[in-house]
This record gives sequence, structure tokens and C-alpha cells, in this order.
Amino acid sequence: MNKADLIIKNGWILTLDDETHTYPEGFVAIAGDRIAAVGPAIDAADWEAKRQIDARGGLVMPGLVNAHTHAAMTCFRGLADDLPLMTWLNDHIFPAEANLKAEHVHLGTLLACAEMLLSGTTCFCDMYLFEDAVATAAHTAGIRAVVGEVLYDFPSPNYGPIEEGFRYTEMLIDKWRHDPLITIAVEPHSPYLCSPELLQQAAELSAKNGIPLVIHVSETASEVKTIKERYGRSPVEHLAELGVLAPHLLACHCVALDETDLGLLQHHDVKVVHNPESNMKLASGIAPVPELLSRGICVALGTDGCASNNDLDMLSEMDTAAKLHKVATLDPTAVKAEAVLRMATIDGARALGLADRVGSLEVGKQADLIVIDIHQPHLTPFYHPASHLVYAARGGDVTTTIVGGQVLVENRRLTALDAEDIMERVERLARTIGAQN
Amino acid sequence: MNKADLIIKNGWILTLDDETHTYPEGFVAIAGDRIAAVGPAIDAADWEAKRQIDARGGLVMPGLVNAHTHAAMTCFRGLADDLPLMTWLNDHIFPAEANLKAEHVHLGTLLACAEMLLSGTTCFCDMYLFEDAVATAAHTAGIRAVVGEVLYDFPSPNYGPIEEGFRYTEMLIDKWRHDPLITIAVEPHSPYLCSPELLQQAAELSAKNGIPLVIHVSETASEVKTIKERYGRSPVEHLAELGVLAPHLLACHCVALDETDLGLLQHHDVKVVHNPESNMKLASGIAPVPELLSRGICVALGTDGCASNNDLDMLSEMDTAAKLHKVATLDPTAVKAEAVLRMATIDGARALGLADRVGSLEVGKQADLIVIDIHQPHLTPFYHPASHLVYAARGGDVTTTIVGGQVLVENRRLTALDAEDIMERVERLARTIGAQN
Repeated sequence: MNKADLIIKNGWILTLDDETHTYPEGFVAIAGDRIAAVGPAIDAADWEAKRQIDARGGLVMPGLVNAHTHAAMTCFRGLADDLPLMTWLNDHIFPAEANLKAEHVHLGTLLACAEMLLSGTTCFCDMYLFEDAVATAAHTAGIRAVVGEVLYDFPSPNYGPIEEGFRYTEMLIDKWRHDPLITIAVEPHSPYLCSPELLQQAAELSAKNGIPLVIHVSETASEVKTIKERYGRSPVEHLAELGVLAPHLLACHCVALDETDLGLLQHHDVKVVHNPESNMKLASGIAPVPELLSRGICVALGTDGCASNNDLDMLSEMDTAAKLHKVATLDPTAVKAEAVLRMATIDGARALGLADRVGSLEVGKQADLIVIDIHQPHLTPFYHPASHLVYAARGGDVTTTIVGGQVLVENRRLTALDAEDIMERVERLARTIGAQN
Repeated sequence: MNKADLIIKNGWILTLDDETHTYPEGFVAIAGDRIAAVGPAIDAADWEAKRQIDARGGLVMPGLVNAHTHAAMTCFRGLADDLPLMTWLNDHIFPAEANLKAEHVHLGTLLACAEMLLSGTTCFCDMYLFEDAVATAAHTAGIRAVVGEVLYDFPSPNYGPIEEGFRYTEMLIDKWRHDPLITIAVEPHSPYLCSPELLQQAAELSAKNGIPLVIHVSETASEVKTIKERYGRSPVEHLAELGVLAPHLLACHCVALDETDLGLLQHHDVKVVHNPESNMKLASGIAPVPELLSRGICVALGTDGCASNNDLDMLSEMDTAAKLHKVATLDPTAVKAEAVLRMATIDGARALGLADRVGSLEVGKQADLIVIDIHQPHLTPFYHPASHLVYAARGGDVTTTIVGGQVLVENRRLTALDAEDIMERVERLARTIGAQN
């Protein structure tokens, strides 16, 4: 008899491994922080465990990977919507951020972690200020995270001048190097807020440490115009020229791409993060996801921050991603449910350089998995799991969330975080923000 | 002391009346099937009731109006997705529908009612086959509904030849005339499946009885092309020519409109139903909602059927509606949250000819209202109610649903329908459908 710490049994198992193995009645055995076995129910007889979770009526799948967000912006959720971009930024978001302190970022990130865990996200990639507070909050919450301090030419409310930004990033790399959940990334904001020297220094630092490089690229046509005026080439060409394009580069948004850009991203195996809801709400445009996928470019999925979404629900994001490209191309076969499901799991893991550890249910991988209650009116009847997950399930349907073998959500409740306390503290902070805004 | 049957207290009240009155801490008193009072908490002292519901941490608002759906198509939820339109229809939906019987439609509608009530919809407008079974199911569920048998030139699996379709519709009008929840409508399918004579006869029948006329119009560019080839004019012009355009006409979809069409819809005060998620998933196109609204045309919101959505969640539909037009027009101020909220409530009621009875919280109106739990991580902090409702809330956040004073959902549970039994029977039916498909 094999021994495990935890067995999830009776669920409909969707592994999302390379062969997309499924087990309509299956089990997952977890030993320590890893998956020890996954397979049909009949094989569960070989396993005993201290603890069992009955997933009957549930769909068991890899935890969702939110590949681009600004977690602490939960504090600004719904503060200002439906405004011209510059009014929104200059009159609402920037003034609110000018007063931010590390403790606020820590608190906002805790709220984001609560929301993400409750809606099935087990790993997120963050870009913001005071990222040591983000890493600390994620570590406390038990969620997996790739975090990096945002770097740009002007002084930061956190670290001051850019040299200190690089020093702060190196401190993060050093401090979190051995953490089982946290990966540090180097995160220059964008070609329009970062000098060529900054971009190259960031690329060198990430290459030297073998860690991800995260950047916003070509989010809007107006950004592309700015960069073309400044450098005579598109943002992607500009990054190519600087030697920044690489397989460990995570290019967020990529809305406004031309054929040359697509070729460069493909050639350098750059990973792209698609953020459809934010791109829609901010009226940025529609990323050419069908073209990216047809070139074999790895596309991950992200929610972006809560000020432009306004939630961190990856199940809803999948729905939007699958539908948006159909109407954008007038092709109902564009970006199928199965493709979107991979974007939100294994391809997200691949984009973050974590595909050997998470993103699918396979023996030896970290036990990051979720259970979704499909025994509900809005998920009845059940014909195909990918269809339900993409087109009908929502964050609130997640009943169980496990990260590295730790059960962080059970019966739709957080086991470790005190949501009441976090919500009360964020409401108090929001009253200050609202009064100033 | 005034007497009521039920008081909802301590909630954040959003009336959506003409002046958009709100009461951050307020109450609603219900006597019989009507709203007897609504106002600030301090006025609640004048009221006593047999029953109270504490809505603390909740947002209280009018029930949502799903202005266009095919409820029984819940049976086909996820049966086939991501296919070319004609493959989807001819190889999957039509064969499945060919075997439908009244009892299946009744069952599928019961499932839809369960899903709608749980996600805050208190009124829906339906078009399908065997609509007597739809009306019966809605009546049993206690939900408000506008229903009408779909009419077209070819023989129907329900009534046979079209003359019988009109006779069936007249039977429905007669049978349900005095029902407090059910309104019968006359529902020719579309200009491309209905002869000019059918359309005119339908218009006459609806006018004679003072009831809504419901039709699909200009859902795709290809439909417009067909009608132009057949009649030398657009579908909207064709309906105008036939004298069918009128204030009680509900024109569903209206995706492919030109300036002339927009002018005609405006001139005749036609009501439009926008179905963004279905239009996206089927790659039909994007309705010109900003233009419709700027002309003062009443636009309601609908989910369409579950085979092309794949849910009946009006909160999620609001989110999509608000975001889609921003990206379609590259204008982040297009179709603001407040406008979408009205589309899903009072303007839906107006479109269905029910604005004097439902759609807002006002004394004397039917007590159709819902409570949404905003004390949750993904709805924290709370700055503006419309923002949360449109951009962050989901069907699963609805805790209480009341129709005509009857509490049909309480603590997220159905009080009258047996969801377990309905789901089990639909799963059994789906196994037959799946086996044939």
C-alpha cells in the first residue's frame, strides 16, 4: 500500500498533461507538496492517506495561472470606471498610488490572494511597487507567485532613483531565492517608460539570474506611435534591437502588433500574456491571439489589475478570451475552449518558466490543483469539461484550492487567511482613498 | 404602524427609479405581491411585518430582466461549441431539437428557471417550441415570463402548419390571459424564416391583443444579405415596409444595422434586445449599442439560449456588454456601467411592456427584487454600486430573489424548486441527446 498525505477522490479529473488525459471518475494522491499519483478510481485502492477530500460532483484540474496582474490594485477596484484613459490615470489612479505605502500594498495583495484562491488561481505573476510586501503577502497566503518591482526612468515612491530599483530587485532575488512559492522577476515597466539602457540592464540581470523578465509591450496603438516617433521602430522591434527579446521574456498585452512584430516574437520564443477584459475595459484594442497561436507562440492569460477589470476571476477571463476572438475575426472556430484552458494553466506555467513544476496534473509536479463544483443548475447538463470551464463556470464555483499540497480553500472557505479581517482593513483604507479621490 | 408581509432591511438600496434614488442603509416593505415602501432605514420604524430578511452587507435592487432567451436550450448547454454556424446548427442543434417533446421543453425550462432565479433574474422573455410548457414551467417556478410560440413558414414539431401556429398562439393568449406572472407574446422567428404574410398576420394579432411582438432581426451580415437579395431591402426596412415596426416590437440582436435601419427603429420606437455573449460566441458581430442609445432607442439585455452563451447569468452579461462596446469603439467611456444596469432592469421591463409593473423599486410596483452579497473579497472595497454590479459581481453572488413578493431564493438556495430532481432528470435526458449527437 502506497502512502500519501491527501487523496482527492471521486472527481472528474482533467490532467491537462501533453496527452490531455482525463479520468471521468478518478483520484489524485498528494505526498508532501507533490502529486504522487493521478489516475482512474480503480487505482486509488493502492493508496492510503491521512486525509481524503470527496470531490464527487466536482471537476478536478490544475490550479489556474494568472500570468499578469497588479494584485494590490484591489484597493482601487471600482474607484473610477468608464473614463478616458488619461483622466482615469491622472485624476484617479496616480493620485491614489502617490500615497501608497508598503503596508497598503501588503494589505491589497492579501485581499487579492483571498480572491484568487477562492476563484481557483494558485499562481500569479505580479508587477507593482513595494514588491517585497507582495512576496510577503503571497508567502503568508500560501499562494505561488512570480513578483518583481516595477522599474522605470522616473523616481519610484518605493526605491527612489532607478539605480536603487536595480539594487532593490537584487535584494529581492537574494532574499527570496530559496522560497518554495516565490520567484523573483526583473520587471521594467514598458518601452515608453524605460530608457534603452534600463531595458538592457534589466535583461542582463534576468539572464544572469535565470529568472523571468516581465514587461508591458504594445498595449495600445498610441503607445506604438509614441515609440515609433521616439526610436523609429515598433516597441517589439525596439526590444529586438536592444537584444531584450528572449524565451524568458514575458510580454504583457501585445495588442498592437504588426507582421514584423509577430515574426520577432515567434523567432525569439517570447511568451505573451493576453489580458482581454482589461484591454476591453480600457478600450486598448484586441490582441491578435489567433495569429499568435497559429505561429506556435506561447500565450498565457491574465486579468491585469482590479482597477481595469474589475476582478481577478480567471474563469470569467477564459470565457471572455474565447468569445472575444470569435467576434473579432467573425470566425466561431477561433480560439477554442481547449486552447483557452491551456492558456490559463499549462501555458501560463510555461510562460512563467514554471512548466516543470506546475500547470498540469502529473506525478512529481507540485500539487497545485482545484475542484470545481459542476453539480449546479448553471453547469447542468455535463457534456464536455472544457466547454463548462470556459463558457459557464465562474470563480464562485471553486470549492477546493490546493497549493503545494496545502488545502487553502475548502468548501468555498479560506482555511488560512482571515477574509473578514482583511476586508475590514481594506474598507478602512478605501475610505481614505475615496475621500481623497 | 403600517403592516407589511415582508421587510428587507439593512441593505444598500438601489431603486433604479427615474431619479436613481439610493439608500445606503435602507429598507423595502412588501405587502402581498407589491412594494409598499422603500426608503432610508429610519423610515422602517413605521413598518411592522410578519417576516424580515436582514440584507446587511448586501445590495438590494430590482430583479434582472433577461429580455431574450430560449430557456429550454439549457438541455443543449455545452453540447457543441466552437463550430462553424451551419455545422453547429445542422449537425447538432437541429437534430437534437427534432426529437424534442413538450415534456423536454418543460424540464429544460425548469432548469433555466432554477439557474435564472439563483442568479438574480426575475423576469425573462422566451422564444421556443412548445411554449405552453414554458409558461407552465415558469408559473410553477414562480418567475415572471413573457412567452410566445416561435412561428415560421415550415412545419413546426409542435403545431404543424403555420395556420395551427396562429391558432396555438391564440390558445396561449386565451389560456394565460389572467395569470399574474405570464404574458403571452406573438413571436415570428425572423424575416428570413417568415413570409411577409406571416409577419403581417403576427403583427395584427399582437396589435389586436395589445401584447408584445418578438422577432430576431439582423443578427448577422449574411442574414441582411439574404433579405436584400430576396426583397431588395434590409430586414429592418422590410419590416417597416410591411408595417410591422411599432413600439411593442421587440427586435432581438440588431447586430447588422445601417443608418437607415437606425433611423427606422428610432422613428417607430422599436425596442432592441442586445445579446453580446451569444453574438460573440457565434461570431455574429457587434450590435451598434452606443448609436442605439444615443438615439434614445430603448435597449434591453438578454443572454440568448444556453447553446450559444453558455449560461443565463445576467450579471456576467452586463459585464460583457459594458466592456465590448468600449473595445469595439476604442472609447473607454462608451456604454457606461449605469447604462448597462438600466438595460438589465428598467429598460428590459420597458422593452417587454412591463415598466409600469416591474424594473425598479417603487411603491405600487410588483415586488420583484434581489439581494447581492457584496461582503466578499472580490467585491471589496465598495466605492460605487453600479461598478460592482457590472464589472465584478456574478450570478453566484445573489443571495435572495423575490418575485411578486414570493421569496424564491434565500441564502443562495431555491425555496420552491427541487434543483436536485431537475438536474437529475436533465442529466438523464442529456445522455440520450449526447448519444444521438
